[in-house]
Amino acid sequence: MPFLDNLNWRYATKEFDNTRTVPTDKIDKILEAIRMAPSSFGLEPLHVYIIKDLSIRKEIKLSAFSQKQIDSCSHLLVFCYINSKEKISKRINDYANLINEAKKIDESKSEKIKSNMKNSMENKSSAEFISWSMKQSYIALGFAIAACAELKIDSCPMEGFDKKSIDKILKLPDYLSSAVLLPIGYRKENPTRPKLRFPNEDLFTNL
Amino acid sequence: MPFLDNLNWRYATKEFDNTRTVPTDKIDKILEAIRMAPSSFGLEPLHVYIIKDLSIRKEIKLSAFSQKQIDSCSHLLVFCYINSKEKISKRINDYANLINEAKKIDESKSEKIKSNMKNSMENKSSAEFISWSMKQSYIALGFAIAACAELKIDSCPMEGFDKKSIDKILKLPDYLSSAVLLPIGYRKENPTRPKLRFPNEDLFTNL
Repeated sequence: MPFLDNLNWRYATKEFDNTRTVPTDKIDKILEAIRMAPSSFGLEPLHVYIIKDLSIRKEIKLSAFSQKQIDSCSHLLVFCYINSKEKISKRINDYANLINEAKKIDESKSEKIKSNMKNSMENKSSAEFISWSMKQSYIALGFAIAACAELKIDSCPMEGFDKKSIDKILKLPDYLSSAVLLPIGYRKENPTRPKLRFPNEDLFTNL
Repeated sequence: MPFLDNLNWRYATKEFDNTRTVPTDKIDKILEAIRMAPSSFGLEPLHVYIIKDLSIRKEIKLSAFSQKQIDSCSHLLVFCYINSKEKISKRINDYANLINEAKKIDESKSEKIKSNMKNSMENKSSAEFISWSMKQSYIALGFAIAACAELKIDSCPMEGFDKKSIDKILKLPDYLSSAVLLPIGYRKENPTRPKLRFPNEDLFTNL
């Protein structure tokens, strides 16, 4: 069933059925959607932790207002973003290598792409850089939620958690910070209340 | 054809076929995906301008490095975010009204939801508030791109533009700022180069 047919079916799942596990082939499809999500310059400045381990999830729960999604879900996805310009500079080199390996363009052109990207990063203030990097994670988050909806897998994006604690629990390298959580699995029960959204005239203007 | 089958088909379209227009029923589906995208507290702190008018797009193009997507596409979507805490406070009231109208919960509970949301907004610094608001637009952007892919409509998310100029051209109210552009339409030609993505081991860790 396509994504667009499941827009009303999906909802921010409050509790998952902890007896059900999302099969590996479906997890792989969700991760492929994340990998194929567009990102600024194609740099994909993110890393996703896929946590099945219950003891780690129980620890994370304590730093996420004890919300039931964290330990009742099948897998917890933690979207992390690259917080360091130094790391991005290395990633730009890796990206240029990807281009060269794919033999798509000659080396002088890939050198130019590299220097354009590096200039763009250097021109950002620290705050602008962090904001830029985090936002790329949110496009991938949108793709992951869309993939889940298409596969009839429940999910619930969550921003309410203590980021520093989660970074510590996951022993993130210095260049990564957690951005947003996405528990996925199967709903324990159907929502009892209808979905609420603002009307079209509130969200759209045609010109 | 479902979204997940079109992940490889979609790409950041550099030039659109300016003789083709996306039909209204498909535009409506894309807007519905945006409207149904999840957002923090359900507040949908965004507004999308859908620009078919060519003269406006030509003006915008001049403030977007003259990139060909802007005036060759069928429709240009401009995702804007709410930049003002005062406006969000009003939106929280509107949201509480939505809840009450749907008669889903009693008024004392909706008052509590309202005050929780307002506290959360007041506790954010200005920079945190802006970052929070913009990120909600990016989930909706992900949903819009996924919807386009499912409908075999091409798109190209673009961050490279002069935000202040675009805000002025669109005569945005003070409480809105432009976040990201999404021209949509039909590709002029197929991409000549393969899609590049970082490998799985670079993006994912299983725990």
